[in-house]
Amino acid sequence: MHEFELIKNYFQKLSKKSPGALNLNDDVFFDKKNRLVVSIDTYTEGNHFINFKKPELVIKKIIRSSISDLVCKGVQPKYYFISGSGNKKSFSKYNLSKISKALNEEQNKYKVFLSGGDTVFSSKLSFTITTIGFAKNIIYRNKAKINDDIYVSGNLGDSYMGLLILKNKIKLNNLLNKYFTNQYFMPNIQIKLTDKILKFANTSIDISDGLLTDLDKIINNQKLSYKLYLKDIPISNNLKKILNLRKLQKINYISNGDDYQILFTASKNKSRIISKISSNYGIKLTKIGSTQSISKKSSIVDDKNKQITLKNKGYFHKF
Amino acid sequence: MHEFELIKNYFQKLSKKSPGALNLNDDVFFDKKNRLVVSIDTYTEGNHFINFKKPELVIKKIIRSSISDLVCKGVQPKYYFISGSGNKKSFSKYNLSKISKALNEEQNKYKVFLSGGDTVFSSKLSFTITTIGFAKNIIYRNKAKINDDIYVSGNLGDSYMGLLILKNKIKLNNLLNKYFTNQYFMPNIQIKLTDKILKFANTSIDISDGLLTDLDKIINNQKLSYKLYLKDIPISNNLKKILNLRKLQKINYISNGDDYQILFTASKNKSRIISKISSNYGIKLTKIGSTQSISKKSSIVDDKNKQITLKNKGYFHKF
Repeated sequence: MHEFELIKNYFQKLSKKSPGALNLNDDVFFDKKNRLVVSIDTYTEGNHFINFKKPELVIKKIIRSSISDLVCKGVQPKYYFISGSGNKKSFSKYNLSKISKALNEEQNKYKVFLSGGDTVFSSKLSFTITTIGFAKNIIYRNKAKINDDIYVSGNLGDSYMGLLILKNKIKLNNLLNKYFTNQYFMPNIQIKLTDKILKFANTSIDISDGLLTDLDKIINNQKLSYKLYLKDIPISNNLKKILNLRKLQKINYISNGDDYQILFTASKNKSRIISKISSNYGIKLTKIGSTQSISKKSSIVDDKNKQITLKNKGYFHKF
Repeated sequence: MHEFELIKNYFQKLSKKSPGALNLNDDVFFDKKNRLVVSIDTYTEGNHFINFKKPELVIKKIIRSSISDLVCKGVQPKYYFISGSGNKKSFSKYNLSKISKALNEEQNKYKVFLSGGDTVFSSKLSFTITTIGFAKNIIYRNKAKINDDIYVSGNLGDSYMGLLILKNKIKLNNLLNKYFTNQYFMPNIQIKLTDKILKFANTSIDISDGLLTDLDKIINNQKLSYKLYLKDIPISNNLKKILNLRKLQKINYISNGDDYQILFTASKNKSRIISKISSNYGIKLTKIGSTQSISKKSSIVDDKNKQITLKNKGYFHKF
């Protein structure tokens, strides 16, 4: 059963008396009256992270992934709570020191502070992170308008390349290995965008599952479709180089998730303020397409202006 | 490593910039400025619950255990978030229906509503529950005063008897089996006490680890000790009957935890208001002893007025 189905069939009705739950349809809980924003995510070994050989990197990734949920909604994360289940090896003194140090670095970088949690011993390693912030307003899912421009922050695909390296599916030189795996473990959260995105975005999400899957999520309830331009989807110079050298198709490397960049739509008349904020604050924001009437099929146009047929909406892994 | 030590050595310093974290020394997070109270607990199969044969009972127990953390602090729980990790069998359609129904019953009983969460697949079953409430004030740990009366709500020990039955360590008739195991799975949270306890308690905790362990927790940083009267510790008629019939020692059955009753201390001049609230609202509140100067050793006096020597402070399992 899909998580979507599971929520709809068994849990949505339980949230009816909690308006902040937003029908369990959004990425965060938002209690407008109390200005409270909450995000909860569980990360398990073998599923959300490969192993715990580098505890400091795993911890950084899950903290960033968690605060990213608030940042993309225009909410400054303030507190986090961490509940860890694992065996004595996972929580050895050595690992605890590494975890503590990594958390401290993340705290200093993102100004979000440990506020509680729990530790239990279990044969299976997992972490649940709760992140809390306060806001008068947030950017919701499903508020895109027709003919909105679609934007993405930063670059896509570096994190996926890092994952392929970690899984030994691709081999590069040490310098590039390090570059891509760092992007995988320590995605560059767009914290500077937090208080600015409310000025121009109609809807937004952080890309965790993949560009197309997440794009679908923010527009699918609104009977809109999209048109994207493959050549405009921003990738790093390092990724460009690898794709060229190895003759790999860009389309297969830009929608695999774990990017933690912000995907948003904005009305066309916001393009000036977006450019201005982008250049004033040094935040890369790239227009990659636009929303359109559902009467047109969602499409991506390739570098030669040809339409790419999507076999599996949102999933390019199988191309 | 004890959780206490783990927190102190690796995490306490990270919480310094989050005053609501209360040094990670209390049972809840309390951000006074934002009136926000948060509790987070993780429950794993084989550790916090024996198995998942009765999902509806396990779910009820963990929800009650979680909201109990707020209730004992004088805070009405308002929202809960549930993050479950488990395999397909644990989250079968049959189990999901049971879970959903159990949650609905708890929601109606305690007026706390599902507000979000996460479901991930994992070989090991665990749940992390986050409960949130709003309050101007809470009752803190470590605010007991010298010569405070010590009180407990409800009865103790029924839940432990239920656990012994579930573990096949004791056999009773079906009616009593059902009574005690129900007390184990569905402890009677003192929700009616929530808004009243702030009027009289100096410090409070919910009994999850055991009367003496939890009593130690709320007074140990204050250089106080306690004197308790075994005969005054309230137990149910059913438990009384079993202890008599089987010639079991009461002392071995009243400090084993999972009671989720509220343990609190109050100044002697509050005894009238406590009696009044107890009788007006039908909430059993029993005075079981008092705090005293640390110059006297903590003690429990038995039914014959003899002092019971504690081998292992707070743990009676080994008696």
